[in-house]
Amino acid sequence: MSAQLVVASNRGPLSYEEAPDGSLTARRGAGGLVSALGGALHDRADALWIAAALTPDDRRAAEENEGGIMEAAGYRVRLLDIPELEYDMYYNVMSNRFLWFICHYLWDPAHTPSIGEEERQSWHAYEEVNRRFATAICDNTAEGVAVMIQDYHLGLAPAMIRTQRPDLRVGIFWHIPFPDADYLRLMPDRWSRRLLEGMLGADLIGFHTTRWAGNFIRAVVDVLEEQTTRRLVSHQGRRVRVGHYPVGVDVKSLTAGADPEDVRRQKASITDWLGGRKLILRVDRTELSKNIVRGLRAYERVLEKRPDLHGKVSHLALLTPSRSHVPEYRDYLAECKETGREIAKRFQTDSWEPLRVEVADDFPRTLAAYELYDVLVVNPVFDGMNLVAREGPVLNRNQGILVLSRNAGAWSELSPAALGVNPFDVDGTAEAIEAAIDLPEAERAWMSKGVARLARGRAPARWLERQLRDLPS
Amino acid sequence: MSAQLVVASNRGPLSYEEAPDGSLTARRGAGGLVSALGGALHDRADALWIAAALTPDDRRAAEENEGGIMEAAGYRVRLLDIPELEYDMYYNVMSNRFLWFICHYLWDPAHTPSIGEEERQSWHAYEEVNRRFATAICDNTAEGVAVMIQDYHLGLAPAMIRTQRPDLRVGIFWHIPFPDADYLRLMPDRWSRRLLEGMLGADLIGFHTTRWAGNFIRAVVDVLEEQTTRRLVSHQGRRVRVGHYPVGVDVKSLTAGADPEDVRRQKASITDWLGGRKLILRVDRTELSKNIVRGLRAYERVLEKRPDLHGKVSHLALLTPSRSHVPEYRDYLAECKETGREIAKRFQTDSWEPLRVEVADDFPRTLAAYELYDVLVVNPVFDGMNLVAREGPVLNRNQGILVLSRNAGAWSELSPAALGVNPFDVDGTAEAIEAAIDLPEAERAWMSKGVARLARGRAPARWLERQLRDLPS
Repeated sequence: MSAQLVVASNRGPLSYEEAPDGSLTARRGAGGLVSALGGALHDRADALWIAAALTPDDRRAAEENEGGIMEAAGYRVRLLDIPELEYDMYYNVMSNRFLWFICHYLWDPAHTPSIGEEERQSWHAYEEVNRRFATAICDNTAEGVAVMIQDYHLGLAPAMIRTQRPDLRVGIFWHIPFPDADYLRLMPDRWSRRLLEGMLGADLIGFHTTRWAGNFIRAVVDVLEEQTTRRLVSHQGRRVRVGHYPVGVDVKSLTAGADPEDVRRQKASITDWLGGRKLILRVDRTELSKNIVRGLRAYERVLEKRPDLHGKVSHLALLTPSRSHVPEYRDYLAECKETGREIAKRFQTDSWEPLRVEVADDFPRTLAAYELYDVLVVNPVFDGMNLVAREGPVLNRNQGILVLSRNAGAWSELSPAALGVNPFDVDGTAEAIEAAIDLPEAERAWMSKGVARLARGRAPARWLERQLRDLPS
Repeated sequence: MSAQLVVASNRGPLSYEEAPDGSLTARRGAGGLVSALGGALHDRADALWIAAALTPDDRRAAEENEGGIMEAAGYRVRLLDIPELEYDMYYNVMSNRFLWFICHYLWDPAHTPSIGEEERQSWHAYEEVNRRFATAICDNTAEGVAVMIQDYHLGLAPAMIRTQRPDLRVGIFWHIPFPDADYLRLMPDRWSRRLLEGMLGADLIGFHTTRWAGNFIRAVVDVLEEQTTRRLVSHQGRRVRVGHYPVGVDVKSLTAGADPEDVRRQKASITDWLGGRKLILRVDRTELSKNIVRGLRAYERVLEKRPDLHGKVSHLALLTPSRSHVPEYRDYLAECKETGREIAKRFQTDSWEPLRVEVADDFPRTLAAYELYDVLVVNPVFDGMNLVAREGPVLNRNQGILVLSRNAGAWSELSPAALGVNPFDVDGTAEAIEAAIDLPEAERAWMSKGVARLARGRAPARWLERQLRDLPS
């Protein structure tokens, strides 16, 4: 059966695990994208989600089901069985290192990147995997329907789909930042052209904010020398629309991710640790773009400048390990822990633990900390949106103040009710944390209420709907 | 006496040295900017060049002359005596590290920059030194005349001058790249605003290429939210013109820098070393932006792929040490040497030295190598203009081919007759070097002639004239 709505992303909504009896059971996948799209597809029996098989069990599940298609929560899922080496090159080398670093300004251009054989091979794998997705999409989609491609893993797929199936209406949503043109061109020229042309195969290209959309449009003008009129790009005789669709928080599915009893227990544990002190919180994957070390240093600077706050505040950093097979990420996690230890040791007393860095993946504890914080520090170097900046305010019950990087996509909506920081400015971040702590009661109430309202934003299901509506009919 | 034309730059045209008898003698300063401007001011007795005293002898000379004003080659020079610590912060920390890294995309944003106390102090010193220059300019300039400020060291001076002397016609020329807006904002927001507003104090803002001018204009729109119409910025009720003025080569003053006999000796020495092989040349300061390591790796890649070229080519890398008091630069020089040794060792035979990395400051040898090369590799990561890419082709006598980074300002003029490379693409650079070696005789003749003609460009004196003409009258 040909699907009437197709979503494609690298990571799918299901992951399989072998039960003790050898049978496969499906688990719901994790991550913001999955819950956003899952909500939107819920109970659409005519919808199909195409994703990569991520584990050996996923591959087995794909094999055992006809055409690799399985049932999920009311919609169908197809997992693509991609050869492991090819997948590794496409995913770990090209997507999560090369493109991720380009889009978040994480290279050190005097030394990296350096394009050699490995990079070329992984670009080739990236093309191949995009082709596999495009083929699977074309093979399973009814005439003229909408295909919604997700993220930087699949930047080439739209043009590949258009070549085979010009009848389809194709959208691509880019969940991460899009860099300025000079920085995009840290990629070999052929690749940046291919990437832009790949994306322009879509009818609609979505970003979280006007800033990333603007960078994309300037890159199109600069690299491809195409004509643009505001948010329309003329490309190969078609008009491609570029839009911004900030995704909000689905509170129900967010809290559904944890047992309320576990959350209560964690609240008690954190409250106990605080002993009446104010809670300064950060919640991050240990990702280079999250700027954890500068954030901790800013807190150190607060303690240096403000002895009156000693014993009155405590900083809890909840870190989830990320991409730990990549050396830079392992080093970064070590640096975060070491910085934390150093600062804690410098200021701690017998009765006060000024800073605790916890490395774990404990969702109930995160939800509990969201409810309790007085100050939430979200200071990414660059970030497409940043969900912590939305989830925290939505769940907070303590008139908590958000200190937010102006380079997070979330800033474009939350700025009226958050304290903005330049993420590179450690002193400036320290000043913002101080200001958040010192904020008079009335302003505190007003800001926390405002940020909670803004942070909720447009629910994921409506976020997708809005894009579908903006596709040409 | 008030000057009728004022030029201001950090480094001046004169440097003083104590003779054995204790008297001070002036030496002509080095560098492209000095020869460019010096040519333009020649024999203008009514002109004044204001610069910083760089050495203790400079300071003494400034003290011993009334008002610090001295005679140079037909024009006057005033050296500003700036307290040493302040100068160090302004020059080494803020200008040559912070701003230089911002403008050449040299930071590693996951880790650097990190704005703390040292950075704030050096920004303050930067403001102070700019104020000293502005005051000196206002004190020594006749009514309504032109003041031409040079480069990123003095970005705040134009607005400071305007406040005191709105009668003056002020130009600033930015000799290095200007970055995209996202990257500019690696600076604290207050600094990027001050810098842009400082520059906009001028009537005319010049860059080497439309690319850097375009980045500047977008930054103005993005950071200051000012109105722009093509190349005009509306700022505080005035219209500021943004232009591009690529500077060319003054062949006479270039070759005047060395004794022809020395050059001949060096030609003999290089020719002897080559033994009839083709010469692949690079000439660089050991500056992080010059991309020396990737360039050497590209040559290695050529030798890997092309055993037929073994014994037929030799690569000479003439490196001049730069900023060796900065740790990153010392490390970079060591890395260049080590990479060179490794590649040489890998391919060398009893009769063939495939690569020689020479670290020296030997201008006659550079001029000799310019005449002799078959292929000149100029592959900076980013570069405002790059003079090697102009000097080489102008002096070459061997139908030499230029392999040139598309991120060098020179690319905008030389592209019709050079082989372009993406500087991050080692494989691509290797392909361009191969192509340059393999180029058929006819194309070789055509390209080398073309690039020599284009490289000469607009002579420095006319480059300054053009800007003076574009100032409002």
